[in-house]
Amino acid sequence: MIRKLQVNDREKLVSIIESTNNFSDEEKKIAMELIDDALGNPNHEYYNVFVYEENSTIAGYHCTGKRALTDGVYDLYWIVVDQNIQNKGIGKQLLDHAENFVKENRGRWILAETSSKDSYDATRNFYMRNNYSIVSQIKDFYKVNDNLIVFGKYIRT
Amino acid sequence: MIRKLQVNDREKLVSIIESTNNFSDEEKKIAMELIDDALGNPNHEYYNVFVYEENSTIAGYHCTGKRALTDGVYDLYWIVVDQNIQNKGIGKQLLDHAENFVKENRGRWILAETSSKDSYDATRNFYMRNNYSIVSQIKDFYKVNDNLIVFGKYIRT
Repeated sequence: MIRKLQVNDREKLVSIIESTNNFSDEEKKIAMELIDDALGNPNHEYYNVFVYEENSTIAGYHCTGKRALTDGVYDLYWIVVDQNIQNKGIGKQLLDHAENFVKENRGRWILAETSSKDSYDATRNFYMRNNYSIVSQIKDFYKVNDNLIVFGKYIRT
Repeated sequence: MIRKLQVNDREKLVSIIESTNNFSDEEKKIAMELIDDALGNPNHEYYNVFVYEENSTIAGYHCTGKRALTDGVYDLYWIVVDQNIQNKGIGKQLLDHAENFVKENRGRWILAETSSKDSYDATRNFYMRNNYSIVSQIKDFYKVNDNLIVFGKYIRT
């Protein structure tokens, strides 16, 4: 079941984020900031968090929100699945949910920023397998030799 | 003279922003939000506002800040010159100042998001004249038929 974030989910999300090897300390901090922002303001225009719940536990979440100044562009800020239960299709279900959220809000674009690092190979393949295309690349972005790659899908309504 | 924003500048900046024909109401609101954010937190990591002052009045400003998760990417969020005193080279001086600010902070990239609309012709020409290149384009971004164009300059240090 994918449902809106609740206050009680916070602790489990902290542990999922903390145990994600791919995330730097700054990434972990910002991921939690967006969750706290969404909890503090459930009708937040910019950050919307939805969790995947199964057998009374949280297996992952996505955080999606509208880009300011646009009338239909949504950023998929985070899509995270518990490292211990990867490859069960939960990421795909969260992605479908995020796309449907965009559709329901009459959005056109869903965009996801990723890194060119080897450790993000699986992430990039995930977006390509799900019919995203590369809409932007900027070299030396996160760090020297760590480029920005923005994946996007144009949502047909 | 280009100097850091002070509380007393706020009223003049409101009037410059309000009188800019190119800005939508949402753009005006967000431009002021960033100014108030910079005033509320002068050592703000993300928003830094510098004003162009001449004969005791403010002729324009830029708002520049580091992109989260990067170690050297700066967004030029806003660069605005009073509509009544355009074409005097003030924009160019503000742009040079923003680039120097990035250099002083050991940044690599300065990025500026603009629109493909006809009313932004002068803005796009301004960046191209100043050796910026287009690093990203996304169609139907701000609105249908209003594309995102991101200009960027790689700062040599």
